[in-house]
Amino acid sequence: MEQIKNYINKNRDRFLEELFDLIRIPSISAFADRREDMYKAAASLSESLFAAGADRAEVLETKGLPVVFGEKMTDPSLPTILVYGHYDVQPAEPLDQWKSPPFEPEIREEKIFARGADDDKGQLYMHVKALELMEKTGKLACNVKFMIEGEEEIGSPSLKDFCRMNKDLLRADIILISDTTMIAQDTPSITVGLRGLSYLEVELTGPNRDLHSGLYGGAVGNPANILAKMIASLTDENNRVTIPGFYDDVREVTAEERAQMARAPFNLDAYKKALDIEEVMGEKGYSTGERTGIRPSLDVNGIWSGYTGEGAKTILPSKAHAKISMRLVPDQDSEKVDELFTSRFKNIAPRCVKVQVKSLYGGQGYVTPIDFPAYRAAARAIEQSFGKKPIPVRSGGSIPIVSDFEEVLGIKSILMGFGLDSDAIHSPNENFPLYNFFKGIETIPLFYRYFTEEMS
Amino acid sequence: MEQIKNYINKNRDRFLEELFDLIRIPSISAFADRREDMYKAAASLSESLFAAGADRAEVLETKGLPVVFGEKMTDPSLPTILVYGHYDVQPAEPLDQWKSPPFEPEIREEKIFARGADDDKGQLYMHVKALELMEKTGKLACNVKFMIEGEEEIGSPSLKDFCRMNKDLLRADIILISDTTMIAQDTPSITVGLRGLSYLEVELTGPNRDLHSGLYGGAVGNPANILAKMIASLTDENNRVTIPGFYDDVREVTAEERAQMARAPFNLDAYKKALDIEEVMGEKGYSTGERTGIRPSLDVNGIWSGYTGEGAKTILPSKAHAKISMRLVPDQDSEKVDELFTSRFKNIAPRCVKVQVKSLYGGQGYVTPIDFPAYRAAARAIEQSFGKKPIPVRSGGSIPIVSDFEEVLGIKSILMGFGLDSDAIHSPNENFPLYNFFKGIETIPLFYRYFTEEMS
Repeated sequence: MEQIKNYINKNRDRFLEELFDLIRIPSISAFADRREDMYKAAASLSESLFAAGADRAEVLETKGLPVVFGEKMTDPSLPTILVYGHYDVQPAEPLDQWKSPPFEPEIREEKIFARGADDDKGQLYMHVKALELMEKTGKLACNVKFMIEGEEEIGSPSLKDFCRMNKDLLRADIILISDTTMIAQDTPSITVGLRGLSYLEVELTGPNRDLHSGLYGGAVGNPANILAKMIASLTDENNRVTIPGFYDDVREVTAEERAQMARAPFNLDAYKKALDIEEVMGEKGYSTGERTGIRPSLDVNGIWSGYTGEGAKTILPSKAHAKISMRLVPDQDSEKVDELFTSRFKNIAPRCVKVQVKSLYGGQGYVTPIDFPAYRAAARAIEQSFGKKPIPVRSGGSIPIVSDFEEVLGIKSILMGFGLDSDAIHSPNENFPLYNFFKGIETIPLFYRYFTEEMS
Repeated sequence: MEQIKNYINKNRDRFLEELFDLIRIPSISAFADRREDMYKAAASLSESLFAAGADRAEVLETKGLPVVFGEKMTDPSLPTILVYGHYDVQPAEPLDQWKSPPFEPEIREEKIFARGADDDKGQLYMHVKALELMEKTGKLACNVKFMIEGEEEIGSPSLKDFCRMNKDLLRADIILISDTTMIAQDTPSITVGLRGLSYLEVELTGPNRDLHSGLYGGAVGNPANILAKMIASLTDENNRVTIPGFYDDVREVTAEERAQMARAPFNLDAYKKALDIEEVMGEKGYSTGERTGIRPSLDVNGIWSGYTGEGAKTILPSKAHAKISMRLVPDQDSEKVDELFTSRFKNIAPRCVKVQVKSLYGGQGYVTPIDFPAYRAAARAIEQSFGKKPIPVRSGGSIPIVSDFEEVLGIKSILMGFGLDSDAIHSPNENFPLYNFFKGIETIPLFYRYFTEEMS
């Protein structure tokens, strides 16, 4: 333990400089014109893995953006840990809300501010540096592989196929992922549940051109008004989704489990204050934690129609669009929900508009067991480094590929995340506390050690 | 009549070239950075008026954008016609839907395609060229004044004050305006009613930043979902506006008047086909003509929130915005409607969002008598040039300043418009048929003659 801390302290600045170099590459998978940066980020990670001591580090093609693969095989008789992460990031828009440039990391208040500082460059780089540390200090207790993809933020469209075609290469005993949060620095936790996702885009077309709102207003169906009505009707006054069949497969959580979840520390006033809202809003009959942990949701992620510029333009728009996503819980199926949504949305449209619905991406939810070696190893490692036993929690987020890993590779995942909810991932001013970054690097070698013990 | 036609035929190409020069100046009043172009357009018009034979032509400052004033006083004992028009145009967005550049006029299918081709550069320039024609052929039957403003498309915020301060300068017997449509080239009509307007912008603020829709979705009120619900609730299942008090001042039109209106030719199938819609949609119990002519309406002119770019971004947006306008009928008051809307909109907002409502512009509706000299003169002039007696119709559009003219200057207006509904004003590919442009120039001198007769 002392040796781990010493190594981190001695190399602190270099670790940060290396991470910053990775962050400076704007590897935004949603933007087709960032393809060059995607390859640049992949190559840079591959080099970092090799430099950290991997025997093998390479950039592998997929049908989409490449996967960085690395491995360090110590002894075939020892367990193998497969680290999964992603080098792609969310778009940084709206740019004007950033206090410092999103792709030029800046340290303020002991936090790294940048797009990807946490999600997932910061979190995955902890693993690269933990490998270096274990290698340099002779502490690598088992075998390790890395699979770092470039399409997580757009729903990992190529990774399932990549896994199918590389089952041997990816053989491992556990998949270790740091792409989630813990409750607080003094309240460590381990994510044991993830929500699934259905993300769709809808387009309504009314008249074949924008019309003068005086000459036509009141006589021709306005796609923007109609879209508002259609979206409004997707949820009821109790904030329940009204799509027929939507709740059919939702696994109800027992009263006992709910009582256990309710013991996780949560301060509603602090939560509201942090978001500057007067009231929370969600499905009737559930707490805030339950609303994101065990219940599905429906959110408009974006909506646009008509004139959105300066001043007034008196038009009745021809088209209206929205991006709408649903977070799903076990055992909702993302493809089934896509279908339920699409059929409902088309059904409720009045005849004066044409409707298009396109599924942008999706994935299943996941629940990790807490009575298996990887959970026990993670809990022991975190207890030792943070000084407190972690709490198992269900997160509202989604890492759709996790359920695919189990299906295709037959390997379970452990979500040992070091982010905080306040890290503003996907938002302007994303950040990652230095404390969490270095605590992560300190915890990972402990996980390797305890996992190997648990498996022996 | 022959002399008028001859003069037009001889000068056809020059008339168009001059109009095109005016159109090429992108005088978009909604855009603050177009100030220089506004002055350029004003100066160009002032020169054109002087060249056409005005004794006096000048650009007069207002508290906003300048007014072009011109006059040709023939004989103080003769009647005076005050021509009103506007040199500002609507923004051309969305630019990608234009078949030719909006500020580079192009003639296709015997129509001028450009922003402002009809509204109102094309229509007002007919008056400039009619003045030249009357001057050059010795046919000017009375006195004429021009008042051409640069803020019509943003609600004429300075013109009422300008009128108050220039009552003497603007003294006239009638205000002549060409900024409306007729039913068809073979079905001329005169607009005898205009709707009023209340145009507002709303902003909802939920959490203080865009949130990750997985970590927060279902637990925090989403301003985009909430805005959809709020907009949806502004109209009911019969497409009536639900704002309390909204219909209180609506002047009901008698069954007899409605029967008369129903005689105006209207082909619903052709209307739907022209717009490529399967069904029209509007207030229950009223025809399409009535829905725009004698009934108020509520339209979303623009809506925007969250991520609207390429691909998927899983955020719960911090803010949601909409531009919402209502067309009003006599005797609804625009300011009162602004207040009713604002108070309703704030009332229906849930506590988890903050609401801002801003009035962008407005104006009162107007109904012209059909038993006064200007209407009779316009009807005679149109009958002579088009070969058919025009039909009086109520338009759904708004020219808010018309009711102000009557209030401040004590002068009535006659709306002798030569546009067509198919001119796509305010839309991409705005156009103005050459036939209408030249017929307008032919009709205006006849109006001058008959108006002078009617007044003598």
